[in-house]
Amino acid sequence: MSEVVQSVILDDANNSLIILDQTLLPGEKRFIELKTQKDVWDAIYELKVRGAPAIGITAAYEIYLSVKKCDAQSYEQLYEYFKKTKEYLASSRPTAVNLFWALNRMEERLKKESKNAIADIKTALKEEADNIYKEDEKVCKSIGEYALSLLKPGFGLLTHCNPGTIATAKYGTALAPIYLGSERGYDFKVFVDETRPLLQGARLTTWELKQAGVDVTLICDNMASIVMKEGKIQSVLVGCDRVAANGDTANKIGTSSVAILAKYYNIPFYVCAPISTIDLNCKSGKDIKIEIRPEKEITTKWYIKPMVPEGVKAYNPAFDVTDEGLITAIITEKGIVYPPFSENLKKIL
Amino acid sequence: MSEVVQSVILDDANNSLIILDQTLLPGEKRFIELKTQKDVWDAIYELKVRGAPAIGITAAYEIYLSVKKCDAQSYEQLYEYFKKTKEYLASSRPTAVNLFWALNRMEERLKKESKNAIADIKTALKEEADNIYKEDEKVCKSIGEYALSLLKPGFGLLTHCNPGTIATAKYGTALAPIYLGSERGYDFKVFVDETRPLLQGARLTTWELKQAGVDVTLICDNMASIVMKEGKIQSVLVGCDRVAANGDTANKIGTSSVAILAKYYNIPFYVCAPISTIDLNCKSGKDIKIEIRPEKEITTKWYIKPMVPEGVKAYNPAFDVTDEGLITAIITEKGIVYPPFSENLKKIL
Repeated sequence: MSEVVQSVILDDANNSLIILDQTLLPGEKRFIELKTQKDVWDAIYELKVRGAPAIGITAAYEIYLSVKKCDAQSYEQLYEYFKKTKEYLASSRPTAVNLFWALNRMEERLKKESKNAIADIKTALKEEADNIYKEDEKVCKSIGEYALSLLKPGFGLLTHCNPGTIATAKYGTALAPIYLGSERGYDFKVFVDETRPLLQGARLTTWELKQAGVDVTLICDNMASIVMKEGKIQSVLVGCDRVAANGDTANKIGTSSVAILAKYYNIPFYVCAPISTIDLNCKSGKDIKIEIRPEKEITTKWYIKPMVPEGVKAYNPAFDVTDEGLITAIITEKGIVYPPFSENLKKIL
Repeated sequence: MSEVVQSVILDDANNSLIILDQTLLPGEKRFIELKTQKDVWDAIYELKVRGAPAIGITAAYEIYLSVKKCDAQSYEQLYEYFKKTKEYLASSRPTAVNLFWALNRMEERLKKESKNAIADIKTALKEEADNIYKEDEKVCKSIGEYALSLLKPGFGLLTHCNPGTIATAKYGTALAPIYLGSERGYDFKVFVDETRPLLQGARLTTWELKQAGVDVTLICDNMASIVMKEGKIQSVLVGCDRVAANGDTANKIGTSSVAILAKYYNIPFYVCAPISTIDLNCKSGKDIKIEIRPEKEITTKWYIKPMVPEGVKAYNPAFDVTDEGLITAIITEKGIVYPPFSENLKKIL
């Protein structure tokens, strides 16, 4: 059974959320039921649900479910309860911008409905959470369609990290064209960088592509060069965390390396970027601060025993910046942006 | 106590070899005593001693020790015994060219000494094994001196895999200039690619550089781009398995990737190559066959649990070929070879 996995599902009849427990991947595909606010808080905190859009969607739905169960008789009572719930959920992952964005959007909607009956407010909040979900799916699908227009059946594709369906409502960003193409018989051969040190490619991307019946091959990060040289790759597709005004793009560590290789081998390098990741206030990659993560993610994590001598330093930047000159096109839900990016990104916004 | 580790030591008085058990690295630095032919066979087979030159040296010394203990009274008896020992040792790692080369060299010497007294033959064999050892050390040291002439104190250096002292008599190839420079206060900052999937960089290179008191930092293979971009690297130094007549160079998987990045960031990329690795019969990289190794080295090895979904394919080439156009210079024990390599490699041979 091949399918594009959906990792967050509202079970309105049972007042619960059904989520894919991503901490069990790739060993086990288990959906769990979240019945309480605490269940949801824990799931976000423990990364059972991960990926910025997926976290936002989860929080929005939990806001709805909590308010639905609340027996407040006035708007003021309901709003009081809402605020407490919002604060509580926001504390689950304090650095997740998308989480706050979704919670704030739910609050705006609540305020807009303040004159209406309690029951209608509850219905409106469900609608708003559904909208957040549907809009994200629409964004992904639209990026997928634009990206797919650049690809041909039988293409070998390379991707990095997990720009995938389980991080979003559905389809993901850079994996969206792969899913849409597969549904239409494009028969892609997809190569996935394992993406050290956290192995998102090995653990998550191969898993979700396999679930969808896609032909997927895992490689180590240092093998991207040889598969390109051997003619196995016709396009590279990556996601992004932030695009600067000049087109410089921050994404998972190693992305810039893949872009430089693609340039050397004359292979198109595409960045799949929802409009929300384009930050015109950020002039260039130089303005993007790179998070440095703990050394132990490199030296001991996942391993049966430490793989590095005690006392040896490790440097663990979580992201890198790909120079705009290496990017063939930036693919958004509103269309494909080609260089010069400093002009054309403004136009599409 | 900082020191350049020596991984194979003859203990002539005790009729034994002392080797560093490399399978215990990086957790434990333990030297073990090999007293019998079987001990040596097992140590080679189990990779307790590894690296082409180190294996050759070990086998040559064991030939000497075995013959020394043999009570043959005639050359014919001794030769008979030699042949059996040689065959036995050769079977320990049937693909190790250097092993056969060392064993054949010992046989040539034995034949040359056929007219001499048994005791003199034994002494000659010790001399030959010592020569193999000393010549290798001399090759490494000479490569180190030439390479060091290209570096400046305080340089940030990047290396890949383990072109190091424990794979050779002493100093290694690409690590030789680092050791020689450190002995002279060059104060290098060395960055080491972990070198997936077998982690030779993480496990072995960081270990031996730390033993020698070198400032060493481990990075994942996909971080080479960011450390170059951040200006941390002034030169890249790698070893090699084979250099073709046009300069194309086969080395550990990922080497070509580092070379392409170095080119992009305008950083010199040096290949350290003993003359014995230059193969003029091999016209270009296209003639070099790449060994494909088992998938499980990527999917399960070292891990506490499988990191990849069952049934997902992995592609595991052990080497790649770096295009000659990416190489700034090839550094041999006879001197530094610059492009055009197809002319200049011939000259140095």
